[in-house]
Amino acid sequence: MEFLDIYKKSEIYDIERIVEMFNNNEITDGAEFKIKGALHRIKDMGGFSFVNVRSSKLVFQCVWEEGYSKCDLSDFSVEECVYIDGVIVTEERSRLGFDVRIKDMVRISGRAAAPLPVEVGNDKKIDRLNLHTMLDNRVLTIRNPKVRAMLRITDGVMFAFRDFLRKEGFTEFVAPKFVEAGAEGGADMFKVDYFGKKAYLNQSPQMYKQFMVGSVVKAYTVSPVFRAEKYSTNRHINEFQGLDLEMGFIESFYDLMSLEARMFKHIFNILNEEYAPELEMFLGEGAKLPNIEQFPVIRFDEAKKMYAEAHSGGIGKQALKEPDLSPDEEKWLGEYAKKYYDSPVIFVTHYPSVKRPFYTMDDPENPKYTLSYDMLLNGMEASTGGQRIHDYETQVEKMQKRGMDISDFEDYLTMHKYGMPPHGGLGLGLERIVQNILGIPNIKLATAFPRDRDRLRP
Amino acid sequence: MEFLDIYKKSEIYDIERIVEMFNNNEITDGAEFKIKGALHRIKDMGGFSFVNVRSSKLVFQCVWEEGYSKCDLSDFSVEECVYIDGVIVTEERSRLGFDVRIKDMVRISGRAAAPLPVEVGNDKKIDRLNLHTMLDNRVLTIRNPKVRAMLRITDGVMFAFRDFLRKEGFTEFVAPKFVEAGAEGGADMFKVDYFGKKAYLNQSPQMYKQFMVGSVVKAYTVSPVFRAEKYSTNRHINEFQGLDLEMGFIESFYDLMSLEARMFKHIFNILNEEYAPELEMFLGEGAKLPNIEQFPVIRFDEAKKMYAEAHSGGIGKQALKEPDLSPDEEKWLGEYAKKYYDSPVIFVTHYPSVKRPFYTMDDPENPKYTLSYDMLLNGMEASTGGQRIHDYETQVEKMQKRGMDISDFEDYLTMHKYGMPPHGGLGLGLERIVQNILGIPNIKLATAFPRDRDRLRP
Repeated sequence: MEFLDIYKKSEIYDIERIVEMFNNNEITDGAEFKIKGALHRIKDMGGFSFVNVRSSKLVFQCVWEEGYSKCDLSDFSVEECVYIDGVIVTEERSRLGFDVRIKDMVRISGRAAAPLPVEVGNDKKIDRLNLHTMLDNRVLTIRNPKVRAMLRITDGVMFAFRDFLRKEGFTEFVAPKFVEAGAEGGADMFKVDYFGKKAYLNQSPQMYKQFMVGSVVKAYTVSPVFRAEKYSTNRHINEFQGLDLEMGFIESFYDLMSLEARMFKHIFNILNEEYAPELEMFLGEGAKLPNIEQFPVIRFDEAKKMYAEAHSGGIGKQALKEPDLSPDEEKWLGEYAKKYYDSPVIFVTHYPSVKRPFYTMDDPENPKYTLSYDMLLNGMEASTGGQRIHDYETQVEKMQKRGMDISDFEDYLTMHKYGMPPHGGLGLGLERIVQNILGIPNIKLATAFPRDRDRLRP
Repeated sequence: MEFLDIYKKSEIYDIERIVEMFNNNEITDGAEFKIKGALHRIKDMGGFSFVNVRSSKLVFQCVWEEGYSKCDLSDFSVEECVYIDGVIVTEERSRLGFDVRIKDMVRISGRAAAPLPVEVGNDKKIDRLNLHTMLDNRVLTIRNPKVRAMLRITDGVMFAFRDFLRKEGFTEFVAPKFVEAGAEGGADMFKVDYFGKKAYLNQSPQMYKQFMVGSVVKAYTVSPVFRAEKYSTNRHINEFQGLDLEMGFIESFYDLMSLEARMFKHIFNILNEEYAPELEMFLGEGAKLPNIEQFPVIRFDEAKKMYAEAHSGGIGKQALKEPDLSPDEEKWLGEYAKKYYDSPVIFVTHYPSVKRPFYTMDDPENPKYTLSYDMLLNGMEASTGGQRIHDYETQVEKMQKRGMDISDFEDYLTMHKYGMPPHGGLGLGLERIVQNILGIPNIKLATAFPRDRDRLRP
């Protein structure tokens, strides 16, 4: 019988490991390593060439020299993967503080076809690709460092969301995606052929996260959400990643807003501390996400009034009639919060009952409004949250008023029937947050493999 | 403008916070608190009653006393949520070291209907429920502490999986669920009506995690996997949570096994350290998951031979003919590893090529076998992994030999065409791991809301 040597170290180095040693002064000029990576860009300087090599998180500069480097550089193409026998040469002008002088190099991938349909190694050209070319060639464009930085930020937001909630005592759970019927009537739901029967793909883990409050009290889930919406805007995709939480024993829906405010502070901190190079690719050199200190809160009707007063004439009047905030109004509120409170965030509370789902708790002081809110980040809706109805009679009554058939909601109402604490929750769309934080114009560019009405590949 | 006070502390206590203070000697006998929880079980002792109260992670004992407690206990039913004005009374026989003497109690939920369709507070009765009753009443049975312990372990496995990989330099990504066509022919895939066109729910993130190797080199994803398999065994569900990873620049597929071995050590450690009370509910008081020290590795053909030798006659001969391991053979191998190497784990390597997918790398020394493996945990398949083909010509040739139409795989082959490092990966099913670790007989009881051919609710 053979046994695994589970702690065996490789003799082939990641550049990340070398950078760490270099920064800790553990290696000196002239140190030699076998290094792995993908050929990112090759620039012939006549007599020598700059060979940019891509690792999992970096691009580092190697130098091929005629007469010194043993390999024939014309044998290699970009995107091929290699082992490099390299020498560390201190170089102040290099981002990492050193270059790698190539003694020899061997290919460990197959040969790469050339030319590439898109120039992975040319940031400017990749940035300027039209949407369809960018997405049709996604297998390759995700290799570009700036696109990859977006993917790394996505990783960071998911990590920070979970890390924060875990420390707050939350339990992660799995919500099923197949459901019998649409909780909200089946509009905008995808239909599935389920062993000859009809099933739907769930639009939201709402019902399940509320169930979990009865068990673990504080629950969250991160999982795909499917919406058969026909919109095709720069803020819509048909499959997105939902970050959803629900929390029992709240004392008011302000508890949810406070939790979310602290969560965003945590997300921004993690990104600033652990994803600085990736952020800089979008925000500019040295740029950081703000340390948010003030979280202004405004009632929906107040916000409406303020907007109308600032927009005399038709626009203002028209806005007052709508029971929701338009993107323009959100943008204006965002600018207001920025200008007067230096905050990228503003909470808008007490949305009209007609615009909120049947499970939203109405404000006892004025049941035309609800104990719910939206959080605007940089003038765009980033999340929606609120307190839910926990009392059985109250929930049944609200459903009946809306003409819903309560017999369709037997499982849902079981929860209320057998005791539920005051509770509430909130939901975010991962791609919208990434889009918002990085200032990406189209949400389809804020995810690896977007799905819209016309796109099912790659 | 109002501003959120984001660090405001509540005056209503979680029992978890009180336990911490009690253990740190920060509170003394007689300390008073307002405590929140759900009424779990009430036991009338004549003149006084034991009132067990459930919090997010614990059940704690309160005592109601006639003439002392102000509230009328007959006004309350189990599963109602309450605030308790309570006094801490040191009590050595109590699990927590103290009881809570009830001065007064108010209900903060609605009234709970009685009797309950299933007795949430009675562990023995809940444990003995038949499968359908258990699952039909899932909204309530997840409130039972032992069922909840399983949900907490699920949280722990997901956390430990991600925590390990993050520290190993992996990046989490999101794989889309909607796909144009089945990568492996569309068998066992669910069909979706996608805006009038046909789409499928992806069976596996395989293709996408390989794409991600070209970008971040080490990638993982945790997300639902849909399989339209008609089996109805105690090891099958039609929607499960896949824990999938893929890794570039491997030197051999032994790198994957080592990674996985260290990952399982990490998962077991985290569960032992942070989920001990939950583990004990399944494994017995004081029980821990083993500290695995040896990871035996055996070739598939060797394992077959050993089994056949140990089972003279028909069974052994029949086993030799099958190009796969049966559950019986897996069980026998598990017992073998346990007996001779005191290990709950055994890796079986070099599965026959005919039984592995088209992207699996054949063993150059004998292409009838592959550079792939299964990990058996406690005599059951826990994961499948292996090295993938990274060379374009080799991949095309293998697909053509299998009669596959390579024009259906344009996106997939783009990856190989433009340079891929040697790479491989592995996949686990979350529910199977939880089932295996906790010794749960049916996988449908190892998840919150299972889906099978006949079950789409709750």
